[in-house]
Amino acid sequence: MSVPRIQPRTLKGFRDYLPEVMLPRERIMDVARRVFRSYGFSPIDTPALEYLDILLGKGGAETDKQLYRFQDHGGRDVGLRFDLTVPLARFVAQHVGKLGTPFKRYHIAPVWRGENTQRGRYREFMQCDFDTIGTQSVAADAETVLVVHDLLRAIGFERFTIHVNDRLVLAGLLESIGLEGRAGDVLRAIDKLAKVGPQRVAQEIEQTAGTSPHQAARIVELVQLSGTTDQILRQLRPLVAASERGREGTDRLAELMAVVAAAGVPTDRVRLDVSIARGLDYYTGTVLETTLDDLPDIGSVASGGRYDNLAELYTNQQLPGIGASLGLDRLLAAMDELDMIEPVRTPAQVFIPYFDAARLGEYFRIAGDLRVAGIGVEVYPEPVKLGKQLQYADRRGFRVAVIAGEREFATDVCQVKDLASGNSTTASLANGAAAVIAEIQRILAK
Amino acid sequence: MSVPRIQPRTLKGFRDYLPEVMLPRERIMDVARRVFRSYGFSPIDTPALEYLDILLGKGGAETDKQLYRFQDHGGRDVGLRFDLTVPLARFVAQHVGKLGTPFKRYHIAPVWRGENTQRGRYREFMQCDFDTIGTQSVAADAETVLVVHDLLRAIGFERFTIHVNDRLVLAGLLESIGLEGRAGDVLRAIDKLAKVGPQRVAQEIEQTAGTSPHQAARIVELVQLSGTTDQILRQLRPLVAASERGREGTDRLAELMAVVAAAGVPTDRVRLDVSIARGLDYYTGTVLETTLDDLPDIGSVASGGRYDNLAELYTNQQLPGIGASLGLDRLLAAMDELDMIEPVRTPAQVFIPYFDAARLGEYFRIAGDLRVAGIGVEVYPEPVKLGKQLQYADRRGFRVAVIAGEREFATDVCQVKDLASGNSTTASLANGAAAVIAEIQRILAK
Repeated sequence: MSVPRIQPRTLKGFRDYLPEVMLPRERIMDVARRVFRSYGFSPIDTPALEYLDILLGKGGAETDKQLYRFQDHGGRDVGLRFDLTVPLARFVAQHVGKLGTPFKRYHIAPVWRGENTQRGRYREFMQCDFDTIGTQSVAADAETVLVVHDLLRAIGFERFTIHVNDRLVLAGLLESIGLEGRAGDVLRAIDKLAKVGPQRVAQEIEQTAGTSPHQAARIVELVQLSGTTDQILRQLRPLVAASERGREGTDRLAELMAVVAAAGVPTDRVRLDVSIARGLDYYTGTVLETTLDDLPDIGSVASGGRYDNLAELYTNQQLPGIGASLGLDRLLAAMDELDMIEPVRTPAQVFIPYFDAARLGEYFRIAGDLRVAGIGVEVYPEPVKLGKQLQYADRRGFRVAVIAGEREFATDVCQVKDLASGNSTTASLANGAAAVIAEIQRILAK
Repeated sequence: MSVPRIQPRTLKGFRDYLPEVMLPRERIMDVARRVFRSYGFSPIDTPALEYLDILLGKGGAETDKQLYRFQDHGGRDVGLRFDLTVPLARFVAQHVGKLGTPFKRYHIAPVWRGENTQRGRYREFMQCDFDTIGTQSVAADAETVLVVHDLLRAIGFERFTIHVNDRLVLAGLLESIGLEGRAGDVLRAIDKLAKVGPQRVAQEIEQTAGTSPHQAARIVELVQLSGTTDQILRQLRPLVAASERGREGTDRLAELMAVVAAAGVPTDRVRLDVSIARGLDYYTGTVLETTLDDLPDIGSVASGGRYDNLAELYTNQQLPGIGASLGLDRLLAAMDELDMIEPVRTPAQVFIPYFDAARLGEYFRIAGDLRVAGIGVEVYPEPVKLGKQLQYADRRGFRVAVIAGEREFATDVCQVKDLASGNSTTASLANGAAAVIAEIQRILAK
């Protein structure tokens, strides 16, 4: 007699996160929250579902097509958010009087897009954004770079480069050579520089933006400037000198780079990089991308930029700002490739076998003493054979086992076993298990 | 010339979380994650969208009606999850081979129900669940009580009571008096005991379960047992002695209470309470509810219970377990009412005015030094008048301002200002701002 079963399965493009995958994900999200807060960014949250007219048309035709949309119980047209920027714009427009400016927020939450999964895209993924709204000051741009820098370091990276540019620089050059209106085509071509090289980029600019070979050459010259910050700035200034926007962009870049250096960031981690364009994004000033020096090909793991007017579709109030996003999936893939993720399936490091069936309360009490000292402890729930319990501990990746049976309890001690080496030492359970805690900390510090 | 605006608004029953609301919410979720992990519970995540047949019929007719359901781009019938238990059952059935048992997981994530908002219900809310799957051992039940206890304490509560019962006890009594089949009606009536009193409950049992007055009286006698754990157990044993299930339930309760006490939980915080029924929930063994001693009327802030077979709809494998949920919204409402929430709109406690326009890099450097010491710092992004900046700091709820201008920088010091008292002291910026950090810590410890 068996009940007809429902096949347990997930929708295409959607993922279950098992502990070994979720533990490092959650650690990064924890680190991100901690770093964001340490700069005074506040958490916010917004509904997964929004009125359709809030979302529609805000991300272009492709995004509209990918929207998960339907009618709710009240016949309202609704949709699942496809990013956190459109909800932020709506949120700020709605609450700006209460929020005040400058307003600094972070938002870590899932978004949904009915993507073509054949391209390896997911239909549900986590976004991790932070923004400073209501100021045009370079201070906010410099701070954005500092946050990305602290974030990468706090996650465990040392070898990375934050590439910084200002859209005003390219706009200034285009203005100087009479190509103001062609920024879109030019940006699209520049975005391919690393992939196809300068000649092909120049060709594409001539073709799509309809420039002369000389104009295309000037643009490619600009985006290829290299050297130290001072060297690049020296070459840059004459190229854009004829344009006020170009001069402003150069001045802002110079100030940003100086402030970030004065703040103590190693200069090799932040690079003025005139080739960074951020393609079709709506940025209007500073733009930034972050590459990992050991895996440059995976692309940017943290990107962002400045915008003139966040919420113009929802309010008359001009709200300039700057924000960036941590690419959670890409970062985790990189950490996996660089062997930065420990293959554990437990958030606790200490395992207490349920060895003596009559002593459960005491095992829990020892576990409680260790937890007070900040040590995570799992007590096995069944008094089965010790070997089976230790097998479980091994499979999960515990580091230490604390073992006590009748003999140990009789003298108020336990065995502290290093599960990697197999070595055991005897430690007293007296004084809130102080000696056990010390021995565990010694093993974990290895 | 103004663009036609879209009215920024949220859907009925959905909420934006502004910083002053989100900060305490996020703090509780952080605490919950930390406590769960400290017991070896691992995080998991599952998709917001599931195949409709996974969700449909799993929560009863009312829940089916409330389901947000639609067809996706591929014409599949899909729905937004309405709880985290059905996805857990699907998840465990799908991955049990890889997960192994015992499997301990927590899941903090939003769920959606098209509720009638007139009853003050929300259509999107956060669930915060933890479960131990794959064991029938009382150890897991006792640990569930310990987790709830640690959680409430870590959040900041001292005066609360965890009420524990076992469904087997009532089932045993019903068996003893020939009413096995009427558990549903009886549970529904018992659930109203606190509200309507024993006489009305007895009447309802007679009417809906069709019992004799004597049978109803026996049930009401059982659920009104009170006193110490030992006193209740002594009265309970003869009442259910004729039923094996009843004896088993009583034994399990006795063991659970003894283990929890031996683990060090103050006995007045855990109460054997035979009146706890958890109404229509699908529990089959231990059940628990948690009330706040200072706000008993708001109901349970953390509830759960044991089930025989989590995933029977999706797999033949028998998966017993026990789990509980933290009632995040209710807990926050209680904290608000008990004045346990500080009215701040910043996650950082220290504010650095951007006072001297030429010193931005140095302000960032000081902020960086404080962050290394674990102190959150916000640097104001614009060098406007100091008074305006301090007004902003006041509105946001910062505790300390670190102020430095030309005069201070000349002697490598700054002013550390206690924003509550208005008192300032001068502290040296040397040695990574060690003196500033010490002064801030002194103020924050007040």
